[in-house]
Amino acid sequence: MPRIVALTTRDVRARTSRHLDGSDAAHADPDYSAAYAILTTDHVDGLQGHGFTFTIGRGNDLVCAAIDALAHHVVGRDLDEITGDMAGWWRSLTSDSQLRWLGPEKGVIHLATAAIVNAVWDLWAKTAGLPVWQLVASLTPEQLVSTLDLRYLSDVLDRDRALDLLRDARPGLDVRASSLQQTGIPAYITSAGWLGYPDDKVQQLCRDMYADGWRSFKTKVGISVAADQHRCRIMRDELGDDVQLMVDCNQVWDVPQAIEWMRQLDGFDLRWIEEPTSPDDVLGHAAIRRALQPTGIRVATGEHVANRVVFKQLLQAEAIDYLQADACRVGGLNEVITILLMARVFDVPVCCHAGGIGLCEYVQHIAAIDHVVVGAPLTDRTTEYASHLHEHFLHPARIERGAYVVPTAPGYSAELHPESYESLLYPTGSEWRS
Amino acid sequence: MPRIVALTTRDVRARTSRHLDGSDAAHADPDYSAAYAILTTDHVDGLQGHGFTFTIGRGNDLVCAAIDALAHHVVGRDLDEITGDMAGWWRSLTSDSQLRWLGPEKGVIHLATAAIVNAVWDLWAKTAGLPVWQLVASLTPEQLVSTLDLRYLSDVLDRDRALDLLRDARPGLDVRASSLQQTGIPAYITSAGWLGYPDDKVQQLCRDMYADGWRSFKTKVGISVAADQHRCRIMRDELGDDVQLMVDCNQVWDVPQAIEWMRQLDGFDLRWIEEPTSPDDVLGHAAIRRALQPTGIRVATGEHVANRVVFKQLLQAEAIDYLQADACRVGGLNEVITILLMARVFDVPVCCHAGGIGLCEYVQHIAAIDHVVVGAPLTDRTTEYASHLHEHFLHPARIERGAYVVPTAPGYSAELHPESYESLLYPTGSEWRS
Repeated sequence: MPRIVALTTRDVRARTSRHLDGSDAAHADPDYSAAYAILTTDHVDGLQGHGFTFTIGRGNDLVCAAIDALAHHVVGRDLDEITGDMAGWWRSLTSDSQLRWLGPEKGVIHLATAAIVNAVWDLWAKTAGLPVWQLVASLTPEQLVSTLDLRYLSDVLDRDRALDLLRDARPGLDVRASSLQQTGIPAYITSAGWLGYPDDKVQQLCRDMYADGWRSFKTKVGISVAADQHRCRIMRDELGDDVQLMVDCNQVWDVPQAIEWMRQLDGFDLRWIEEPTSPDDVLGHAAIRRALQPTGIRVATGEHVANRVVFKQLLQAEAIDYLQADACRVGGLNEVITILLMARVFDVPVCCHAGGIGLCEYVQHIAAIDHVVVGAPLTDRTTEYASHLHEHFLHPARIERGAYVVPTAPGYSAELHPESYESLLYPTGSEWRS
Repeated sequence: MPRIVALTTRDVRARTSRHLDGSDAAHADPDYSAAYAILTTDHVDGLQGHGFTFTIGRGNDLVCAAIDALAHHVVGRDLDEITGDMAGWWRSLTSDSQLRWLGPEKGVIHLATAAIVNAVWDLWAKTAGLPVWQLVASLTPEQLVSTLDLRYLSDVLDRDRALDLLRDARPGLDVRASSLQQTGIPAYITSAGWLGYPDDKVQQLCRDMYADGWRSFKTKVGISVAADQHRCRIMRDELGDDVQLMVDCNQVWDVPQAIEWMRQLDGFDLRWIEEPTSPDDVLGHAAIRRALQPTGIRVATGEHVANRVVFKQLLQAEAIDYLQADACRVGGLNEVITILLMARVFDVPVCCHAGGIGLCEYVQHIAAIDHVVVGAPLTDRTTEYASHLHEHFLHPARIERGAYVVPTAPGYSAELHPESYESLLYPTGSEWRS
């Protein structure tokens, strides 16, 4: 097993704001960015671990600096020393006796934790010669639970409960894996509905994506009731009534406003409203969900939920119909798997947040773990997809007929082409010089 | 009114870890630190605004970098342009379309927001020639509400409700101010009970502080039930049964563990258990509070609560008996005042978190605002005090007979002596060279 000899950060940014790709009601001009942690090892084949966290531009440098501040927890360690007590190692990052004050377990320091944690999983999987989802599937329930820090969760998920869930899911694991490799991972697409796009662009994109096999779409809303009704009408007219349509206002409403606004978007057969208010407002989401139940519009959130403790409460309060964990908002794959297990306890479908840069590459593994290892059904689950920036990845996410193709390359699919690390480097890469 | 021409950051740290001052169950070796935002103006008298956020060492540089990243929201602005629409200006910081991804409103980016916001209040108050609490008292209810961003709060506190509260508190405002200046602000002291202190040091400190007039004490707990019982017994034996005694475990327990553990600390007549579990666990605090009601031990939290939305829920869920907002964990004085108003709606006493470096200097203003402007009674309220590091401040907090003396110097009491900015500068100041 290799020894980690160095950690290098890379501040990588794409100028997506030029064409308003990714624009929504709270983020008018995102430049999709990634703060990378690259682990160099003494492995004879030069194996590296690549992990990143996603941001939308300014501040990506702060996350890189936070990764550097945490580097002493990983540099100089043998990989098997880390993986031998991964929960303990994970807690050493999140409970650093001085750095934890900056969170704890939220914001810049937790985003940085995710980059490092995901880089370790990437390295571990490459060492095993497996894609991360298959590495996780190869662990025994005892091994997998030993990677999870269940602190603060014992009122809903303790070690025994986690083991029971994983043991119950053992039978059929191989069958589910084979089947998923044949069917692909159910997905929906966000790329037709960015808020800044003009009507004709939305119509054309809907037409093209439908032709490509997409049957589940999402659009951004939150400008005005009239504008949102107009956007929903355009998409329904173009797509027909048989496709799934979701809406996402990116946190711009107060609780009473969310209820009132969404009642006026009734009639478009919307599957969910995403992030209807502050991501911190567990009880607010619960109130919105209760109020909207007569409309059939369900409530989804998670991409800005900081950690497993907030997800625990979203589940306890029956605040959400869909749980949209982000692969690097929480502290990397270990915390994500913990959240998958809690969602299974409450029987709430996980539909991971993706898009951005690289998130699609991560979440395909998570969706596979949820189904294959945790044993969640595919019913009523769908994983987000956005179509840009995949060309930068060594092993990009692939879509066939509106579903993710289960990844096969060893690692966590996070590594960029060497030339993309150069061209996207902020502020000196070619992306930023022009 | 001055124009803000530059923002300078200062990474200031005290080596408190040398003597375990400030040590607790989650933070074994804090170096009390402050990330300063210093606003330079074109004012004829060279007026500056000084604001900081508190950290405990490593990572203070990250907060300074985040202050720099937000500086464009304040540099080049006229002070009256900011104070004329302070809620709008505040939201421009917290909703920066790219930087908000790093929070939103939590962690490093929100700590940095607080430093800048508090520096603006310091400047505004110096310009008015008033201590901040008196500046706030001099504003009309309409002016004060115009400084508050009430986003996400309308289910418990909208503009009309905020105005009603402040108008109702107008009668008697001057009388309360005069009275408070005579009696001082009720306080308790934490300095005898740091976790790393040996028994004889705790005993001697209790004896000295009691002799100085202190009648309300707090100790850290969370090592083991036996060790905590021992610490409580030592302090009760030394102090007698007539003083208030509180305990603080700094987030180290799960919910069931907190309940079980605290039941075993029954019998020491403890006023509250502080931070019994994750600061994000609103529903967990509510469960602990319900379970401990038969013991009479009440529940307090807040120093790690990220923002007003989480405080809203702590109040809605009846999760806390005491609300311990931090002056710079949330987004500066504007958000603190919003929280004071919400606490008034729910009739929950605010007992601000202090200690650290500079927090005592801030919170004396907040306690005065709560009583004088918001109209909260003094009953069952107490503000934290810790006795170290005040010598670095130009206008340090002053204690008489266990109560804060209401501050009189213009500003927010945040400014350090020029020589302290030099000696504490990390890593080149004399504090760190030795």
